[in-house]
Amino acid sequence: MKIKCQKSDLLNSVNIVLKAVPAKTTMPILECLIIEANDSGIKLTANDMELGIETKVKGNIIEEGMVALNAKIFSEIVRRLPENEVSISTDENYVTEIICEKAKFSIVGRSGEEFPSLPEIEKENPLILSQFTLKEVIRQTVFSISDNESNKIMTGELFEIKKNELRVISLDGHRISIRKITLKDEYDDKKVIIPGKTLNEISKILSGETSSLVNIYFTDKHALFEFDDTVVVTRLIEGEYYRIDQMLSSDYETKVKINKKELLSCIERASLLIRETDKKPIILRIKDNNFELNINTSIGSMKEDIDIEMEGKEIVIGFNPKYLMDALRVIDDETVDIYLINPKAPCFIRDEEQSYIYLILPVNINVAS
Amino acid sequence: MKIKCQKSDLLNSVNIVLKAVPAKTTMPILECLIIEANDSGIKLTANDMELGIETKVKGNIIEEGMVALNAKIFSEIVRRLPENEVSISTDENYVTEIICEKAKFSIVGRSGEEFPSLPEIEKENPLILSQFTLKEVIRQTVFSISDNESNKIMTGELFEIKKNELRVISLDGHRISIRKITLKDEYDDKKVIIPGKTLNEISKILSGETSSLVNIYFTDKHALFEFDDTVVVTRLIEGEYYRIDQMLSSDYETKVKINKKELLSCIERASLLIRETDKKPIILRIKDNNFELNINTSIGSMKEDIDIEMEGKEIVIGFNPKYLMDALRVIDDETVDIYLINPKAPCFIRDEEQSYIYLILPVNINVAS
Repeated sequence: MKIKCQKSDLLNSVNIVLKAVPAKTTMPILECLIIEANDSGIKLTANDMELGIETKVKGNIIEEGMVALNAKIFSEIVRRLPENEVSISTDENYVTEIICEKAKFSIVGRSGEEFPSLPEIEKENPLILSQFTLKEVIRQTVFSISDNESNKIMTGELFEIKKNELRVISLDGHRISIRKITLKDEYDDKKVIIPGKTLNEISKILSGETSSLVNIYFTDKHALFEFDDTVVVTRLIEGEYYRIDQMLSSDYETKVKINKKELLSCIERASLLIRETDKKPIILRIKDNNFELNINTSIGSMKEDIDIEMEGKEIVIGFNPKYLMDALRVIDDETVDIYLINPKAPCFIRDEEQSYIYLILPVNINVAS
Repeated sequence: MKIKCQKSDLLNSVNIVLKAVPAKTTMPILECLIIEANDSGIKLTANDMELGIETKVKGNIIEEGMVALNAKIFSEIVRRLPENEVSISTDENYVTEIICEKAKFSIVGRSGEEFPSLPEIEKENPLILSQFTLKEVIRQTVFSISDNESNKIMTGELFEIKKNELRVISLDGHRISIRKITLKDEYDDKKVIIPGKTLNEISKILSGETSSLVNIYFTDKHALFEFDDTVVVTRLIEGEYYRIDQMLSSDYETKVKINKKELLSCIERASLLIRETDKKPIILRIKDNNFELNINTSIGSMKEDIDIEMEGKEIVIGFNPKYLMDALRVIDDETVDIYLINPKAPCFIRDEEQSYIYLILPVNINVAS
């Protein structure tokens, strides 16, 4: 194989496929990326068996062929090359020369034949989203997946399509995040659970432009994301997702309208007094259009008041401040509405149209205190 | 004690004294910073017994007094306060209230009486440098101190004043870095060894402006740096510094004039092929106005040529690439001169005026190979 391409193009593509190179693996071939040059162009591939990424590189093919190179070493070399044309050529033993200006590297490659190819997926009836929308919806929900592998379903996100509506849902046992997106077209109903790790990696690759589209294809076991010159294939998580609709009551006893930035800064300050070892809640006293936040830990105490508009009954309720902060950070509205029922029932942060719903369970506090 | 000051002023000063708060200590009082308000103003102090920093904060004193607060907690609280006026007040038990807008923190402080005060140093005949010069000279030399505490002298830098010349020297057994600065005035001869850690911390605090000055006062055991509203006191390292002048031969067999950026990028690329565990040298072949760099490791090999101007004999010599990179990174000249004697003698990178000299020992290589 012998190819020539610009360093910046090559680096860009290498950085994309690197997301699918496992940090640790018992199969050394998975630490490689594949460079393949044939009549359909130059293609880089990496695959950790759950997530596979393929992307094209602009360049000239002098001789067709394929080689597997250690992804970490190859990417570090490419990163440091001068900004100029790079020539990559392999001999019959897969010794690979990388030449750029006067720098000439030589590293030992492998044939790549044992490399697991990406699953074949029929490209029919894609779900079409803008890169911006997909990147945003991942950011707005992925923080509340669980990282506990013992409950596989919680480590993924539900993508639920109903006609022209996409709901993306994640939950971790303490909270639920839901985002609703109106689609341009109508689709057949579908429910799939996509691994959170995949979504995290995809959102790093997505340009996030509103004018660029992503096509998403589903099979029973896989999803394929196609955008720009890149294809990402991921395994789906098998099983039935939680029935969350029955938890989404719209009844409430107290409704609070509060400035988001003020509330977030206030909780961030309060959380300074928490050491990781002690899980002290913040305590909210909502009464007479006043929102009083209290925290009392081994380090010290803090109290802060925020003016609010409220409806309904007064309430005293405790929360893990992290859960409130996570949700508030991904809401772009200037003011948010918080709906509360009682000190033991979940609270809801949601907008009128329910384009977002963040359900957060309270922490039991001794209300008498 | 009760004081009021702006959050930004307070944060700025807290960040300065934080540099002298030890990460680990067996004396809990040293984890505190002292706030002292009296007729000379508001002052913050921290002291890890080797390095002590005092700095002033603009503000109003409502009630004089002093308190010791856990530096980490206090600094985190201050960092997160709104940008507005902060009020700090203590009661008779040193419970300290920090109030800013509607946020009210309460943390437990201590009297601060057991806090070790900074050594008294007579302020006479200071050495005067611009902040820029001091910050630069530290950056240009401090990388070659040793971090091995078993040889205390190597962990510091020699500041040697002779008439109107200051030489700053560091060495670690593999290399020597020397910078020479011409002073505006003449001074009495003086030699002191300042801990590298202190210099690193000072350089982070220095604004680096050419128009701001630093006054440095010396006693037998201490040095005091005075700049802006800050005073830094450090212990000196006791003992006799190495006699380095006899190592600084100006004889050479080969002189190379080379583009600095080209050389540095080339060595950076070569060092990619080195894993931390194997200490492979780079091998330089200097011959016929060509500079050939070779490296050969378990990962792969690299060869690169650079055009040079040379005088004298051809030579093949090996180096630890890190030492060359460290020196080249702090030289601002576009081209550098490298002087070589033989494959076992140190090389010198220096300018005509010898305002900088970087001596680097070669690595033994089998020249036949």
